[in-house]
Amino acid sequence: MGVRELGLPQRAASEGLPARVTIWEVGPRDGLQNEKSIVPVEVKLEFLDRLAAAGLTVLEATSFVSPKWVPQLADAEQLLDGLTRRPGVRYPVLVPNERGLARALDAGCTDIAIFASATETFAQRNLNSTLDKQFDMFTPVAAGARQAGMDVRGYLSMCFGDPWEGPVGYEQVVTAGQRLFELGCSQLSLGDTIGVATAGQVEGLLAAFGAAGIGPERLAVHFHDTYGQALANTLAALRCGVSTVDSSAGGLGGCPYAESATGNLATEDLVWLLDGLGVETGVNLDELVATSAWMAERLGRPSPSRVVNALAG
Amino acid sequence: MGVRELGLPQRAASEGLPARVTIWEVGPRDGLQNEKSIVPVEVKLEFLDRLAAAGLTVLEATSFVSPKWVPQLADAEQLLDGLTRRPGVRYPVLVPNERGLARALDAGCTDIAIFASATETFAQRNLNSTLDKQFDMFTPVAAGARQAGMDVRGYLSMCFGDPWEGPVGYEQVVTAGQRLFELGCSQLSLGDTIGVATAGQVEGLLAAFGAAGIGPERLAVHFHDTYGQALANTLAALRCGVSTVDSSAGGLGGCPYAESATGNLATEDLVWLLDGLGVETGVNLDELVATSAWMAERLGRPSPSRVVNALAG
Repeated sequence: MGVRELGLPQRAASEGLPARVTIWEVGPRDGLQNEKSIVPVEVKLEFLDRLAAAGLTVLEATSFVSPKWVPQLADAEQLLDGLTRRPGVRYPVLVPNERGLARALDAGCTDIAIFASATETFAQRNLNSTLDKQFDMFTPVAAGARQAGMDVRGYLSMCFGDPWEGPVGYEQVVTAGQRLFELGCSQLSLGDTIGVATAGQVEGLLAAFGAAGIGPERLAVHFHDTYGQALANTLAALRCGVSTVDSSAGGLGGCPYAESATGNLATEDLVWLLDGLGVETGVNLDELVATSAWMAERLGRPSPSRVVNALAG
Repeated sequence: MGVRELGLPQRAASEGLPARVTIWEVGPRDGLQNEKSIVPVEVKLEFLDRLAAAGLTVLEATSFVSPKWVPQLADAEQLLDGLTRRPGVRYPVLVPNERGLARALDAGCTDIAIFASATETFAQRNLNSTLDKQFDMFTPVAAGARQAGMDVRGYLSMCFGDPWEGPVGYEQVVTAGQRLFELGCSQLSLGDTIGVATAGQVEGLLAAFGAAGIGPERLAVHFHDTYGQALANTLAALRCGVSTVDSSAGGLGGCPYAESATGNLATEDLVWLLDGLGVETGVNLDELVATSAWMAERLGRPSPSRVVNALAG
């Protein structure tokens, strides 16, 4: 049951929406990483396989961050070893440093992602580095990955607001983004890590990237729903030509203790929008909802996705 | 604490957003009407007064529907009698029939709203009438109200999808809307009663009204967040020139038994968007959040508003 049965699908009149959107599914990595109780590797593998079966073509599978920092993903090698890779599906992994790259290479990965901060304070707090020096840290990682024929994605955090610094200027974000492209990233994902952005700011930042020669075809957006803005921001980005959107099946992620965690944009809510707009995703919403409902049961609490609650609640 | 401290307010480049939006606050009526445990009239009065103090200028106060159908609002007379009307604030009430109009007149109301259905099935089920005959029912109500110098708003339900009929065609909605204007309504609120609409459909319907000579200045939108689309749909409507938006403080409404009810668009999430876009509302977000947090305590469960949870959770 989807928007086609209940509503009237209608491509937006003249807004130049992309014909097809690639959903970069972050649930298995970004969604699960903050879960306190360890999810068995078999459950993670079934989750990945069901997401691929539902038609998702990019599944961020795990992370090679130190198990000390993210115990939930300490099973990265075991997971990748057990993974049945479906044809046409990419399984990128997050890599923080050269040690992580070596592990990713050993595991046979072909896609990695590195993550930088757009602000000084978050570079210090999250990476124990500085806004400037973080790029030196990633230089050998990106170079090594490229040399091995891997695709490298860059994540940029705090692109709109920072809890310590407040609003973040467009130029600062564009400069940080340019440095990730210079390192060899093929795509840059702009993260609203604390979920404060609104639609006008999204358009403003994308325009600033455009003015610097970086078009929407090289950019992705990664919105959090902390203030309920994730989908409206996504719509604004689509209208600027962005055609890769990060989201998390069932809205996994955010604070695992909240009644209704408000973290990542839920993939189901995104698919509802895109189905309604007539934008192709290749995703079967019913299968995706069933998968997220199944995962919510494994985790022992309801999904924060509106669509999951409406269709499977 | 609002978007101005945490993010970068930015009026959307060239999108012709309205400079000011009137929020039609439906929490006290639409939000509370499905609450099973009766909220004391003193609490409702404090709620209304705090909403007005927070800067809201249109507060749908109660309904003169039969207490048999909506026991929660059986105290309509008592509430209106106890209400301290603030200057510059309107307190419309819902009126289903001539009996309701007489009660509204006795209570000294100056603004009423009537409610029709855009579909046959819902006209039968909600009004025990037909798509055609419902307008006859409202004719004397609207005429009597106008004669008494009242302002009459028309609500139209199921403007996008209907649970029994599926997608609803634009022409059908425009025709029903025209009939409400012919009855003497000054404004028409387009309701997505089951929350299935997506942004392209919103633009399509507003364009269809425009083609029939009914511009966005005479229209309001009323979105439900059942599938997470309410704010994205609102953004689409704003870009079409709509400048009256219905919402419910704290997201009150919807199913009172769900962990996180997904009913009306939360006023706080709307204000966050509008503040970020630089669109004036006159609302103080901090006071509004405090009011909704207080009301959530009275009702004994968390607010479904993302903003309320983030700032007061």
